[in-house]
Amino acid sequence: MPSPNSAFEKLADLGRKLEALEHAQSMLSVDEAVMMPSGGGEKRAESLSMLAGMYHEMATAPEIADWLAAASEEPLDDMQQAAIREQARVYTNMTCLSADFVRRQVTVRIRSEQLWRELRAKDDWAGFLPAFEGVVAIAREEAELRAKALGLAPYDAMMEQYDPGNRAADIAPVFARLKAFLKDFVPAALAHQDEKRARRPLKPLNAPFPIDKQKALGLAVMEAIGFDFDHGRLDVSHHPFCGGVPTDVRMTTRYVTGEFLSSLMGIIHETGHGLYEQGLPKEWSHFAVGKARGMAIHESQSLFMEKQIGRSAEFWEWAMPLIREHLGPASIEGWDIDDLLLHVHEVKTGLIRVDADEATYPLHVILRFEIEKGLIEGTIAPKDVPEEWHARMVAYLGLETRDNYKDGPMQDVHWPSGAFGYFPSYTLGAMTAAQLWAALEKDHPAAREDVRHGRFVAINDWRREKIWSQASRFSTPELLAKATGEKLNSQYFEDHLRQRYLA
Amino acid sequence: MPSPNSAFEKLADLGRKLEALEHAQSMLSVDEAVMMPSGGGEKRAESLSMLAGMYHEMATAPEIADWLAAASEEPLDDMQQAAIREQARVYTNMTCLSADFVRRQVTVRIRSEQLWRELRAKDDWAGFLPAFEGVVAIAREEAELRAKALGLAPYDAMMEQYDPGNRAADIAPVFARLKAFLKDFVPAALAHQDEKRARRPLKPLNAPFPIDKQKALGLAVMEAIGFDFDHGRLDVSHHPFCGGVPTDVRMTTRYVTGEFLSSLMGIIHETGHGLYEQGLPKEWSHFAVGKARGMAIHESQSLFMEKQIGRSAEFWEWAMPLIREHLGPASIEGWDIDDLLLHVHEVKTGLIRVDADEATYPLHVILRFEIEKGLIEGTIAPKDVPEEWHARMVAYLGLETRDNYKDGPMQDVHWPSGAFGYFPSYTLGAMTAAQLWAALEKDHPAAREDVRHGRFVAINDWRREKIWSQASRFSTPELLAKATGEKLNSQYFEDHLRQRYLA
Repeated sequence: MPSPNSAFEKLADLGRKLEALEHAQSMLSVDEAVMMPSGGGEKRAESLSMLAGMYHEMATAPEIADWLAAASEEPLDDMQQAAIREQARVYTNMTCLSADFVRRQVTVRIRSEQLWRELRAKDDWAGFLPAFEGVVAIAREEAELRAKALGLAPYDAMMEQYDPGNRAADIAPVFARLKAFLKDFVPAALAHQDEKRARRPLKPLNAPFPIDKQKALGLAVMEAIGFDFDHGRLDVSHHPFCGGVPTDVRMTTRYVTGEFLSSLMGIIHETGHGLYEQGLPKEWSHFAVGKARGMAIHESQSLFMEKQIGRSAEFWEWAMPLIREHLGPASIEGWDIDDLLLHVHEVKTGLIRVDADEATYPLHVILRFEIEKGLIEGTIAPKDVPEEWHARMVAYLGLETRDNYKDGPMQDVHWPSGAFGYFPSYTLGAMTAAQLWAALEKDHPAAREDVRHGRFVAINDWRREKIWSQASRFSTPELLAKATGEKLNSQYFEDHLRQRYLA
Repeated sequence: MPSPNSAFEKLADLGRKLEALEHAQSMLSVDEAVMMPSGGGEKRAESLSMLAGMYHEMATAPEIADWLAAASEEPLDDMQQAAIREQARVYTNMTCLSADFVRRQVTVRIRSEQLWRELRAKDDWAGFLPAFEGVVAIAREEAELRAKALGLAPYDAMMEQYDPGNRAADIAPVFARLKAFLKDFVPAALAHQDEKRARRPLKPLNAPFPIDKQKALGLAVMEAIGFDFDHGRLDVSHHPFCGGVPTDVRMTTRYVTGEFLSSLMGIIHETGHGLYEQGLPKEWSHFAVGKARGMAIHESQSLFMEKQIGRSAEFWEWAMPLIREHLGPASIEGWDIDDLLLHVHEVKTGLIRVDADEATYPLHVILRFEIEKGLIEGTIAPKDVPEEWHARMVAYLGLETRDNYKDGPMQDVHWPSGAFGYFPSYTLGAMTAAQLWAALEKDHPAAREDVRHGRFVAINDWRREKIWSQASRFSTPELLAKATGEKLNSQYFEDHLRQRYLA
């Protein structure tokens, strides 16, 4: 046990204050999306910005460096040592940019994002290009500063913010293999889908579906798959999210009466995030080591729930009666499970990433990974992005985006707002989910049978042990290797796609 | 304009940080009452306590004393000078108790309140007495410390926390006069009520009243009386309150289907608080001078809305059609306005303060004022409180409380939790509301006519000018004198009661 005056305890005390500020920021953001009237927005933004400033000041105080150094000399157990290591990593990531640089960066980013919102609607790439060049230039500067502080390559230093331990040298070959696989797989899946639909035309949903009934269905599914309503709730917001804090997870959805599947699948996805948060170790909530590992792992948990479980045939064997119970038998009159699977297994190539299905989505991400890596490394110039984009869209998905900027490189907020290194997380999450499912089935061969009967306890116990309770004790690749016995391997994701879309 | 490096600007910067923390604390408390699942409570309490600790540390920092001294020498306009005066007052009130004393006090208070919750249910005064003696002893100590720092008498120093500028020497004669008036008035009002009811028996409400319809009625009334829904909203909580921040006022109510009047009158009351908050000067929200004046003035604003307006005959001339519109004509079938007034003008003596009507309520408060003043000044011993209480209940309301502690001195949470000096605010608020109404009618003779037609703009404009926009620029008695042209005068409240209950 560290003594009450130890450096470890000083860090713990600081952590409790920071946790309270995070709690406030998180809940104020939830309230803003779910409850706040629009006139409250200006003061809310001011308050959140003040709290963020206080947080940053407290979390980057110079004495923390001394405490971290002193704590690493103190007699600590394994978990305490991991806590100090992770805290030091976070501290380095937070302090490696000077206050002057951050101020300059914020100005560039805000201006670029504002301009993007205005010019995207007008499809005006030429007008946006100078701001984009500015945001890329400052991102390169940021990457250099981070690289120097962390001893990493510039693009790796950017990814390090989102998925600690992930390196382009490891990811690039995995993405290259997946890309090669998908080039042939997507056309094959489309052809297979055409055949199926020729035999069995897609049945329409029997709308309308009243919102209160959709809500009851969503809550029933959340409860069955293990969401703890004593430590969380479901509300409505324009953009669905999973927020709050581990002891009080706030999920949202959005309902339309014309169909129920998008809200339901969204709820299942966000419940995946929610279960991860609820499963984090409470006793470490005031240290970085007690928080969720990063974006790829978080996304793996939601995609595990949504794609691996929620779009499986076994899941719908269990869930179809629930739909009839909550939405009435007429809602999917005369459907059997294959009619439903035709809806949730739709494959369709398209220009927009956020509308993509699980088979085509990785190609959108790989395209962005290749371009943003080139932008940060200086091998691609901002002005050449539309051509780079178009060439890849043609090669990967057979679609043209020349002179279509708003559905091309201007479609996402990430780059205009200065977020480079984030895109890979989506597909790393999808691959990780498939690899985790395969590992689960090895340890628990009855997993599919469990899903077929709506039993999620054993599945969640496995995930809690392997992922949730580990929090940020290990780097992203270490965590995956410990949970599955091997490093990231796209084979599992490929097998998953083949089994679902070619069978 | 103070320069950017002036002490005034340092205080302004600090004020913006404190405001952000207040914003967080306030909204987290609203969320706790309205949205939070019970399992989130422990971490929420921890976070709120951490934020309160940060707030206290920042608001009591020693350098603030230097800034306040320096600012008072800077070239400031009238409002800026008032801001510095008020900030200095708040600083003195916050720093006059040592951290050691506050720690000791918190322990005594929490223990006393916990014991009270347990023993009140058992009507166990003897068991509670030692804790009560402890809480009175530490309140006396607190009063001495505050008195010394503020140069006030001990009980005045306690009241100063709630209603700056109010002094027992001014209040005691006003209360004595009101008490003498009510001694005869209450029996007369009861007799008058009996006569009325003999001629016109009380008609029952035609329940049930569905909650969604009651909600629509409440929202319609709030909107009509001027609540700005772009800067606030109405939700449901177990104990109704008005919280949030001036730019985002969060009101709550509670519905029962058996009747609609208690929720509706509660909404009107809380809307009075809400209008005050919404009417505070936005540009001063980060200084104490920009916040609501105190408890008595706040209560005067809710009682102005509820008692002066919301229980008047003119109000119901306008509101009865709204009831029929929202709850259906059958809800008050065959009622005329006198039937409704019999409900909202009910006078009834009873043992419990929170259940009392506006005619008997002041007697409950005066009783507590006399006893708590005696407790703080040492002229009444804690052990003698039940006898003091009983004697006053008999003298003022003709009711016995001997050996009935839970409906006597154990009924309120205030003393067990260490809040002495707060009770007068309720009745000072009621008297202030009546005095403000009289002053309004002098300036705006059509006020009653306005209410009769559901017109609240001119009334609210007057209140905004006289009270809301003044915030904490003046002390409580100064504010009242400026708004009405005279100091607190119970005549207005007496006239109000006479007119309503004896006519």
